Amino acid sequence: MSLNEVYDNGNIFAKILRGEMPCVKVYEDEDILSFMDVFPQSRGHVLVIPKRPSCNLLDAAPQTLQKLIVKTQHISKAVSAALSPNGIVITQFNGAPAGQTVFHLHFHIIPRYEDMTMSQHASGRMADLQELQTLADQIKAAL
Amino acid sequence: MSLNEVYDNGNIFAKILRGEMPCVKVYEDEDILSFMDVFPQSRGHVLVIPKRPSCNLLDAAPQTLQKLIVKTQHISKAVSAALSPNGIVITQFNGAPAGQTVFHLHFHIIPRYEDMTMSQHASGRMADLQELQTLADQIKAAL
Repeated sequence: MSLNEVYDNGNIFAKILRGEMPCVKVYEDEDILSFMDVFPQSRGHVLVIPKRPSCNLLDAAPQTLQKLIVKTQHISKAVSAALSPNGIVITQFNGAPAGQTVFHLHFHIIPRYEDMTMSQHASGRMADLQELQTLADQIKAAL
Repeated sequence: MSLNEVYDNGNIFAKILRGEMPCVKVYEDEDILSFMDVFPQSRGHVLVIPKRPSCNLLDAAPQTLQKLIVKTQHISKAVSAALSPNGIVITQFNGAPAGQTVFHLHFHIIPRYEDMTMSQHASGRMADLQELQTLADQIKAAL
């Protein structure tokens, strides 16, 4: 059952949390890390993850979810202020058949712009890291 | 700006909350209401809304979001136990350009089944209410 995974410490977000992989950081506190998605579905696509390990929404501690959603709101407001999208899509995938590709709980903040379509998730086109850094700096300035 | 709406008491979820429109209820407490989406994107598509009015994620009180995400988890677990989907997609749309059609904050719980594709949201095919009631009864039994 894809919804009852065992947490694997080798997943890429666990590596980012341990500092073994780089990320373009937007926000960090003792419970939460937020960084730019390197396969963005739109300009300013941000991820928000808890530091405490869980595979998905179902196996997370309720307190973890409470911290995560409040920070997701906080960062969404900054994305809105910094990039002026026309809308924002929040998604959270549980299980590979639902589109989950990294098995560490995460929320996607995906800005929508009226004149741009949304790309397929993890479609393989990696973003330019300098461009992501510029976007992260704009969002951080609005936090 | 679609992300800075003024809350309109005439929206369909406000009417459901006031008892002016029916819904196929899954869960209710003093802060939260959950009911079946009448335009389901898959079998067992459930909505979770706060009773306190807000247009979207951005204008909600953090405490409201905390209650909402914990109940979204609770109901997602029941959906998983009752219907055994292979995955669950959580979505939350902010602003019409992001796909929001009712301007009262809501989370979608959308079960995914390996052998079924997901329908377009609000594509116009209203679900059979008796079928929705049967699904709601199964989910409620797993709460």
